[in-house]
Amino acid sequence: MNEVVSMSNLLRTAFINTRQKTIALAEPLSEADMTIQAAEFVSPGKWHLAHTSWFFEEFMLRPLGISFVQSESYRFLFNSYYETIGKRQPQYARGLITRPALAEVLEYREAVNQAVLKLINAGLDNHQLEILEIGINHEQQHQELFLTDILYNLAQNPLYPAYIPAPQDVIKKNVAHSTDSVITFAGGLCSIGHEASGFSFDNELPSHLVFLQPYGLSRHLVTNAEWVEFIEDGGYQTPLLWLADGWKKLKEEDWQMPLYWQKQDEYLAYGLHGLRALDLQAPVSHISFFEADAFARWAGKRLPTEAEWEVAARTSDPESELQDLYQSVWQWTASPYVAYPGFKAATGAVGEYNGKFMNGQYVLRGSSFATPASHARVSYRNFFYPHQRWQFNGLRLAEAA
Amino acid sequence: MNEVVSMSNLLRTAFINTRQKTIALAEPLSEADMTIQAAEFVSPGKWHLAHTSWFFEEFMLRPLGISFVQSESYRFLFNSYYETIGKRQPQYARGLITRPALAEVLEYREAVNQAVLKLINAGLDNHQLEILEIGINHEQQHQELFLTDILYNLAQNPLYPAYIPAPQDVIKKNVAHSTDSVITFAGGLCSIGHEASGFSFDNELPSHLVFLQPYGLSRHLVTNAEWVEFIEDGGYQTPLLWLADGWKKLKEEDWQMPLYWQKQDEYLAYGLHGLRALDLQAPVSHISFFEADAFARWAGKRLPTEAEWEVAARTSDPESELQDLYQSVWQWTASPYVAYPGFKAATGAVGEYNGKFMNGQYVLRGSSFATPASHARVSYRNFFYPHQRWQFNGLRLAEAA
Amino acid sequence: MNEVVSMSNLLRTAFINTRQKTIALAEPLSEADMTIQAAEFVSPGKWHLAHTSWFFEEFMLRPLGISFVQSESYRFLFNSYYETIGKRQPQYARGLITRPALAEVLEYREAVNQAVLKLINAGLDNHQLEILEIGINHEQQHQELFLTDILYNLAQNPLYPAYIPAPQDVIKKNVAHSTDSVITFAGGLCSIGHEASGFSFDNELPSHLVFLQPYGLSRHLVTNAEWVEFIEDGGYQTPLLWLADGWKKLKEEDWQMPLYWQKQDEYLAYGLHGLRALDLQAPVSHISFFEADAFARWAGKRLPTEAEWEVAARTSDPESELQDLYQSVWQWTASPYVAYPGFKAATGAVGEYNGKFMNGQYVLRGSSFATPASHARVSYRNFFYPHQRWQFNGLRLAEAA
Amino acid sequence: MNEVVSMSNLLRTAFINTRQKTIALAEPLSEADMTIQAAEFVSPGKWHLAHTSWFFEEFMLRPLGISFVQSESYRFLFNSYYETIGKRQPQYARGLITRPALAEVLEYREAVNQAVLKLINAGLDNHQLEILEIGINHEQQHQELFLTDILYNLAQNPLYPAYIPAPQDVIKKNVAHSTDSVITFAGGLCSIGHEASGFSFDNELPSHLVFLQPYGLSRHLVTNAEWVEFIEDGGYQTPLLWLADGWKKLKEEDWQMPLYWQKQDEYLAYGLHGLRALDLQAPVSHISFFEADAFARWAGKRLPTEAEWEVAARTSDPESELQDLYQSVWQWTASPYVAYPGFKAATGAVGEYNGKFMNGQYVLRGSSFATPASHARVSYRNFFYPHQRWQFNGLRLAEAA
Repeated sequence: MNEVVSMSNLLRTAFINTRQKTIALAEPLSEADMTIQAAEFVSPGKWHLAHTSWFFEEFMLRPLGISFVQSESYRFLFNSYYETIGKRQPQYARGLITRPALAEVLEYREAVNQAVLKLINAGLDNHQLEILEIGINHEQQHQELFLTDILYNLAQNPLYPAYIPAPQDVIKKNVAHSTDSVITFAGGLCSIGHEASGFSFDNELPSHLVFLQPYGLSRHLVTNAEWVEFIEDGGYQTPLLWLADGWKKLKEEDWQMPLYWQKQDEYLAYGLHGLRALDLQAPVSHISFFEADAFARWAGKRLPTEAEWEVAARTSDPESELQDLYQSVWQWTASPYVAYPGFKAATGAVGEYNGKFMNGQYVLRGSSFATPASHARVSYRNFFYPHQRWQFNGLRLAEAA
Repeated sequence: MNEVVSMSNLLRTAFINTRQKTIALAEPLSEADMTIQAAEFVSPGKWHLAHTSWFFEEFMLRPLGISFVQSESYRFLFNSYYETIGKRQPQYARGLITRPALAEVLEYREAVNQAVLKLINAGLDNHQLEILEIGINHEQQHQELFLTDILYNLAQNPLYPAYIPAPQDVIKKNVAHSTDSVITFAGGLCSIGHEASGFSFDNELPSHLVFLQPYGLSRHLVTNAEWVEFIEDGGYQTPLLWLADGWKKLKEEDWQMPLYWQKQDEYLAYGLHGLRALDLQAPVSHISFFEADAFARWAGKRLPTEAEWEVAARTSDPESELQDLYQSVWQWTASPYVAYPGFKAATGAVGEYNGKFMNGQYVLRGSSFATPASHARVSYRNFFYPHQRWQFNGLRLAEAA
Repeated sequence: MNEVVSMSNLLRTAFINTRQKTIALAEPLSEADMTIQAAEFVSPGKWHLAHTSWFFEEFMLRPLGISFVQSESYRFLFNSYYETIGKRQPQYARGLITRPALAEVLEYREAVNQAVLKLINAGLDNHQLEILEIGINHEQQHQELFLTDILYNLAQNPLYPAYIPAPQDVIKKNVAHSTDSVITFAGGLCSIGHEASGFSFDNELPSHLVFLQPYGLSRHLVTNAEWVEFIEDGGYQTPLLWLADGWKKLKEEDWQMPLYWQKQDEYLAYGLHGLRALDLQAPVSHISFFEADAFARWAGKRLPTEAEWEVAARTSDPESELQDLYQSVWQWTASPYVAYPGFKAATGAVGEYNGKFMNGQYVLRGSSFATPASHARVSYRNFFYPHQRWQFNGLRLAEAA
Repeated sequence: MNEVVSMSNLLRTAFINTRQKTIALAEPLSEADMTIQAAEFVSPGKWHLAHTSWFFEEFMLRPLGISFVQSESYRFLFNSYYETIGKRQPQYARGLITRPALAEVLEYREAVNQAVLKLINAGLDNHQLEILEIGINHEQQHQELFLTDILYNLAQNPLYPAYIPAPQDVIKKNVAHSTDSVITFAGGLCSIGHEASGFSFDNELPSHLVFLQPYGLSRHLVTNAEWVEFIEDGGYQTPLLWLADGWKKLKEEDWQMPLYWQKQDEYLAYGLHGLRALDLQAPVSHISFFEADAFARWAGKRLPTEAEWEVAARTSDPESELQDLYQSVWQWTASPYVAYPGFKAATGAVGEYNGKFMNGQYVLRGSSFATPASHARVSYRNFFYPHQRWQFNGLRLAEAA
């Protein structure tokens, strides 16, 4: 009981913080910025604000009969993909919803907040605690998506507006790595997946054994400087480096460098601070799996599997060994996103959260600078399609030991 | 000289009124409403505000060396289709421009207003007067497009928001017409096109002779009640009533009634006042040429040619004969939009205004309730593609006399 | 009565000759050549053979209860676009019909021939004579389409096979024309359209008056040499020469020269004799309306209207005045393909022959080398969409007199 | 040396038999049947005949300087996807190649045969033996594709022609299985992949250890009768049974039953013998991975991984335990098609054979009735995209033990 109480307190704080942080992310943006949607795979900022609130309403409040005047229309407008819940606004048309206005969505958020807090204060049962925890984690995921989507939307503007101004006095880490700085791991029968305590999504379960051969991982992430080498060595013109599907995509979309890069006299990259000179020492970002895979082949290496990444992350010293495992860029792995042996989707509508996307995507591990720190963990499985480039996704190389 | 002065005074007033009216049209809308673009063929409200200002800047101010801090980027963002002027934001992506903000565009409008008025006050030469007049007429066209585009954009919202609330106490005209109320005209060698005095676009010139056979025109426009008959008689299921291209479009887009209509227990129509019961006595609107043509065939009649329409409008009494020639809905004609014999496009970039669109479109005559009254005239040639339905377009029937 | 008999005899001969000529056109082709379809707008050779036979079956034999074992499936497979007749093989999928085999289609043709001839020998009533005449004219149209379609299909083969070898010893006409060789016409109130006697399609009727201003037509057709000048003067890079729809198409399909042309060291053109050096003195062919229109603008002239063409052709001496009116290339006019005043579509299914295509197309006049000579006449209205290029279509320039 | 000689003799026989069998497969088809291509993912019969010959020319003969008059053009026309070798006919346009004629392709096949046999008779070195073996296996793969592609091409014909008539007196096996006939396996650390001796493709290597949990496999393949139950229980209308990508595909293409099935009064299925009543006891075929996966979920089971399949096939008695492992239909597994740990693509152009397709596809195991018996083996990894349905692909269910 005490454990539930303290859990409840922890989640109360997490709920408040998470809800506030989402609002803070929207601070620098106009209502127009928050409304548009430049491609089917991104969502408007306002939609993220509403959808993450709808999630709490749908799964925590509605079962208790709590709803709001706007509930019926919002249920249609802000459901993402839950078939169980019914019809919804088509994903490609989320950017046409100018009403409700942003102010109305903010009011709705506040109403949901009050209702949830009232519930927390009254005491939650275990199922409600679980939903609350999922809802917080869900909103944390959307915080990162909020930024990647806003970046993509603003990037369509030929004026290249900055989301926020760049800080004046960044002291850059002196990244003095050499390509041979490889850390080796013995492999063998290893365990991966989420262990019993603490929150995880269903796709991290069950923990299970895998058999690995000896392998090595690069201490550092691949950098922009290394990526420029790849470009200038003809990486984007050499079909034999690429998977057939990747080469097809490259041709169709005329890829010549990462998303948001331009080449004028020097390389420029558009980011949250606007269009700026490329930081050569920073890890490369906004690359697809296809590009990561081609780069690895060009470098005479390969991408790690997710099991290799997780075993390494569990067993190495982050100071002296593998760097930037978290809070830099997500790291593409060679592993298609499939169910772990014995995987069981959660019951009810939240069972649609992960399992039904287990096709055609690849797992990314670690986390990015845009991931809430409390959201990252060693067993976390992020996933995207191999051609997608608008996320903060980079890579770390692997090889046989 | 006096004539120029008085012309200058008239245009000064017209300029001020036109510029104010555009702003008034935007009054009921949020910044988000003004930003989005639901299809390539519509433009955002904000874009209309900026583009009509850019037109004055580009053609009146820039030749005098007058420009603004934002001129270079706005030239790219708000040029519509002038190849002479250079590259521009692609039409399909106008709805992704959240910056400049609406407030910035309003400031830009004001700056253009001040600069133009200063110029007018200093005295305009004949060429400048001409450009000013074109600019005013251009903006009047966009006032109608502003409404049709806003309507289309808002119509994508499943909540069906109203642009403005419906007036409380409309007294409807009692439209007591019979289908046999046909006015006949003798035809013969007739003159059409704009005569010397007053403004016209280049496509209304030159005035020229055409030979017409005797014909009749319906006194009234086709009404919603008549259109319901057409629907319920299987009009949308009978291929032999339709042009082949029209039938193909109908199948592709599953047309079953005019744009913005729904059938629940009764017919509803979405419009500037929201979703409301269909007004059976009102003229039908939001139909394509293909539908107008099929309706005419179903009714055993045909559409008039633009020459028939113009000759009739020039020679009949609007009180006792043809009704609703203007200020109701535009009237589709059977005439493809082509150059009049001896047509010469205007010189300079404004020469791109009309001529290059003379393919694949049909002429509409008259004007709609959304057309500024001073913008309508007997020789006016409006034009749209035969499948387009988002304008305030209806029809009047014709037949051999 | 005698007139009918002699008409019957004439049509008997025409029927036999037309049916034989179609077979002769297929002579140089393999079964595979006759089966494929490289684009939706072309049809397989075998389909043309079957469809022209089905036309006689459907409209002459079936009303008498005559049909064949294959009739039901052929009715589905070889109906072109007659909604009245029922469902049919989709146009884009005609090239997937490998069965019936070519030999079976030839047998079907022969069976139809025998049945029609038996009917002719037994004596036809007026309606049957009319259908027979339409059927012959219909097949003559398909003879030209057969060649344009085969050319298009073979052109997709990187080996550029010749349909037939080039003749060895062509003596070319010495075409010594100057661009100023313009023939002028007075205009005024003129009559166009088919007059009472002899066959015509419904779209050539009724004969009617039009008012023309004085105009001039070039004595000669535009040649390949002139077209090369247009290309090398940047004609395909200058948007102001083009209609907006034309420029869009040019960009989408990357037009740089007429269809079937290539530039290596010199210009080459693919044609029925294979890939050969461009004949500079020959009239240009395989151009779209958009290209013809842009060329005329570049040359400071314009395309003639169809009325101008017809009046000129009716009143000028083909030896000393206008050359190559017929049997060279079809000539694009500036006239959209619409109904003549008072047009009435034929009754029954053949009423779908022309009228329903009166949208978005332009009229061509004259005839090409591939048109059966007996099929050409001064009132003939051929029509294609403005972007279509696979026909033997060229142009003759016009100007104000 | 003797081993090489005997290997050479074996391969000589295999080469002759394989080359003859391909010709035999084409026996029932016309030149037109062999020419067309109904979708980008199938190839024309003639293309298969030419491509499999080109493979021997390119990889065995050309390195020795042996080529044919047609080599240059055939190299362009009949290269499939080898970037190393240069430009090629686009895959979607293979069905437009009417020349070379079928007879010419047959001559080319014969010329290649003679040249290869001459080489074999003169003695092959190890590398040549390897290429010969790959070439034979490659042609065996195309024998199955030949049938699946011909079936797809003929299926577009509304007459539903049979490839070959059905045999008169098939005695059907009495399949008396119950759904609970599950064979269990202990799992643990197991070895999969091709062992040292005998031919394999590079993607079956290297043999390696995997860790498996205990599992069960159904003794029998899922039957048409069971699939009918799935359909009639609403399987194709229940989104929760489907992967999100699968449900999207189902909606886009309106899947309601396996490819080639129809429902009239009863279920019919089109196959190599034409359109016939569905054989309820036969294993279901022509299903996509998405359908197989949804069926398994509906049945409360899952698909096996490829490792589970292989370990079971290596260790069970095909008579008394798992049935129809081979020569019935391929069996979808849950395993994405990726490289085995330590995979190395073959060197040279044949290195493009497998590795570059390792994205987005799923592994199938076993073989179908159309697979040459000598081509099937326990480590064989067939692969297709999860939406593809035109192969002879079915499923076997798995579950936790």
